[in-house]
Amino acid sequence: MNLKLKKLFKSQFLKKNGAFRDLPSIQGLEISSLSAGLYKKKGRRDLSFFYFEDGANHAGVFTKSQVSAECIKWNKIPKATKIKALLVNTKNANALTGKQGFDALKKIQKEVSKKIKIKSNEFYFASTGVIGEKFPIKKIEKKIPKLIDGKKNTSQTNWINAAKAIMTTDTIAKVSGKTFKIQNKKVSLAGIAKGSGMIYPNMATMLGFIFTDVNISNALLKLALKNNLEKTFNAISVDGDTSTNDMLLIFSTGKANNKKITKVNSKDYKIFENNLCEIMLSLAKQITYDGEGASKFIELDIQGAKSYLDAKNVAFSIANSQLFKTAIAGEDPNWGRILMAIGKSHALVKTKKIDLKLGKQFIFKKGNIFKNYKESVAAKYMKGSNIKILVNLGLGKNKFKAYTCDLTHEYISINADYRN
Amino acid sequence: MNLKLKKLFKSQFLKKNGAFRDLPSIQGLEISSLSAGLYKKKGRRDLSFFYFEDGANHAGVFTKSQVSAECIKWNKIPKATKIKALLVNTKNANALTGKQGFDALKKIQKEVSKKIKIKSNEFYFASTGVIGEKFPIKKIEKKIPKLIDGKKNTSQTNWINAAKAIMTTDTIAKVSGKTFKIQNKKVSLAGIAKGSGMIYPNMATMLGFIFTDVNISNALLKLALKNNLEKTFNAISVDGDTSTNDMLLIFSTGKANNKKITKVNSKDYKIFENNLCEIMLSLAKQITYDGEGASKFIELDIQGAKSYLDAKNVAFSIANSQLFKTAIAGEDPNWGRILMAIGKSHALVKTKKIDLKLGKQFIFKKGNIFKNYKESVAAKYMKGSNIKILVNLGLGKNKFKAYTCDLTHEYISINADYRN
Repeated sequence: MNLKLKKLFKSQFLKKNGAFRDLPSIQGLEISSLSAGLYKKKGRRDLSFFYFEDGANHAGVFTKSQVSAECIKWNKIPKATKIKALLVNTKNANALTGKQGFDALKKIQKEVSKKIKIKSNEFYFASTGVIGEKFPIKKIEKKIPKLIDGKKNTSQTNWINAAKAIMTTDTIAKVSGKTFKIQNKKVSLAGIAKGSGMIYPNMATMLGFIFTDVNISNALLKLALKNNLEKTFNAISVDGDTSTNDMLLIFSTGKANNKKITKVNSKDYKIFENNLCEIMLSLAKQITYDGEGASKFIELDIQGAKSYLDAKNVAFSIANSQLFKTAIAGEDPNWGRILMAIGKSHALVKTKKIDLKLGKQFIFKKGNIFKNYKESVAAKYMKGSNIKILVNLGLGKNKFKAYTCDLTHEYISINADYRN
Repeated sequence: MNLKLKKLFKSQFLKKNGAFRDLPSIQGLEISSLSAGLYKKKGRRDLSFFYFEDGANHAGVFTKSQVSAECIKWNKIPKATKIKALLVNTKNANALTGKQGFDALKKIQKEVSKKIKIKSNEFYFASTGVIGEKFPIKKIEKKIPKLIDGKKNTSQTNWINAAKAIMTTDTIAKVSGKTFKIQNKKVSLAGIAKGSGMIYPNMATMLGFIFTDVNISNALLKLALKNNLEKTFNAISVDGDTSTNDMLLIFSTGKANNKKITKVNSKDYKIFENNLCEIMLSLAKQITYDGEGASKFIELDIQGAKSYLDAKNVAFSIANSQLFKTAIAGEDPNWGRILMAIGKSHALVKTKKIDLKLGKQFIFKKGNIFKNYKESVAAKYMKGSNIKILVNLGLGKNKFKAYTCDLTHEYISINADYRN
């Protein structure tokens, strides 16, 4: 994120004074985080632990990559109705580590159980970092007693520390939370996420963890995640690369003491799903803002597609085009590249039906350059940090909204030297 | 192309003294090129004309983009058996220019016909440059008489000048030619191409023009192009972006006076197809070497796939991955990103079956890091300019070889400021 974009980020996601917005405390959840020395930088938090003393209902979605990490394999093994813990490490992805990586998770679970009894089907794991390096089990094992002793209620500081302890190339912690009412009871939702590169989630995101005290069934938690996924985490792309470790988990402690939500057609469920969507969209957008090297946040609004898949296809054909992204980085309204990306997509398109709008100005209308198009106006618009592009394909009623960022020198620097 | 890669390019495609290799002269073809002032830089060649006095048999393949340029539309209108001329301009793509762009081509054809009679169905056009800007018909029209008067036999200088007159961000002219025998008669093939960015051809390439004096039917010219396409121009990617203007044309004057080749099962046709493949592969590789900002030429050899499409899918999932390309730019053997790209592909893959080789060294074998893998050896290999990667999926007998380049700071600089 460059300075200008960071300013916009702050106005969108932080308090007026620049501090993180207050996250609600979630009854029944304790958090702990510390440095296990996985990073060279001394004291950098890299290990975090989320503990539910009385268990929590839960649901998750995982990467569709066929080359998935060991923690993904662990998490996909059927779990108990109530989960007790989640342990997350950064710096090492525990991907392509084979038996060594999977056995390490068993070891951690046993080590934790020496202090607090947690069965393997009550345990989730998440990792993020370099793929293909040996999992640093020894460094982690050594810190487990201290990690467990450190668990505390979810104060503001604890939330931020945990959000920081899951970062890799992220430049800022990503948090979102809110309080609302169900059955006239105050309930809370809070979530943290990380992700900056290798972001083009396929049914899940890098790492996202959402917590609530709402009393709600596992089936409805899963449904709410899935219903909101397409327009939040599955609507973002930083670089078109899908991670081996993508994971989004939700946990509900039920401590709000509302009557348990079990019916999909109920008003309570609808309220919950809508509020969850807000948190998910906020976290997904924060990841895009903090895309590696980003200097612009880009919204692609695709309308008028023959089918939903066509709309999504066009959105990501633009969002993942290197030439489009570099033009935005150069603040050049080189709109021909948007049309190029539409043309190479596999969606049905007809040049003569296409409308293209940059900000509030039409550029292209029904196959021709718009008669009143002024490049000077577009050039000025491109200097902003939030670029809005509307494409109407003129062939139907389906739409999709995608979020992405530009492709800058900084992205190359970060990724050419990532492991150094 | 950085200096080191240019050295490798020269050793592969130029004479020992660094001069362009001699292109054979093609009887029945005259060439002319000049500057019409389309570029700001004074005197830069930007317009070229290829003339066949007695006509030429011909075949072409064009971009699959649904948003194609006006010249593509013109060329797709059925042509006479023998073609008389090809006119190419650079700087402006004549794409999304609508009626203005198409009418300009009619105007040029009429203007040319004032001096030498050529019907509209005997005329090919090709353009390359910025998409969506008005076609500069006036500047071009003015130069037509001089362009026609300047046509000359295909001397070495004329070939190179024409190859330069079709360049955009290319840093070096791309030419390839050879002489061989058919029916004991000396025959010749010569080709030029351009392309550096927006390179991920879909059934054709940026611009490629191949000429021969072999007497051969239009049907077999088309077949020879198509048969060779998959392993040459359709096997390269610079940035995963498909152009609106991709085009590959072949012309045969028949002046070698061999007995006309009309049978696909004949030995003569086989000789022709094989020699054509060599020229096409050379031009396609040259485009990849000269990929915008490239510092490494990368060969991806995918084997053991369940199907041909799976092999191709995996090859381009790696070739088009920003994270893979930036790791190569950083000379970092971060092989986890290769596995990541395999995992996100839509091909059938099983981690436990995958073998991965960098140069001559195994890294990953059947789901585990290879026991003798030495990162220091890999790190040294990455410093070279030609990176060879072999992936064996272990699931079948199908293969695909793709060529790409790395993603560097230079690519961003070129494309953020392209229109300035």
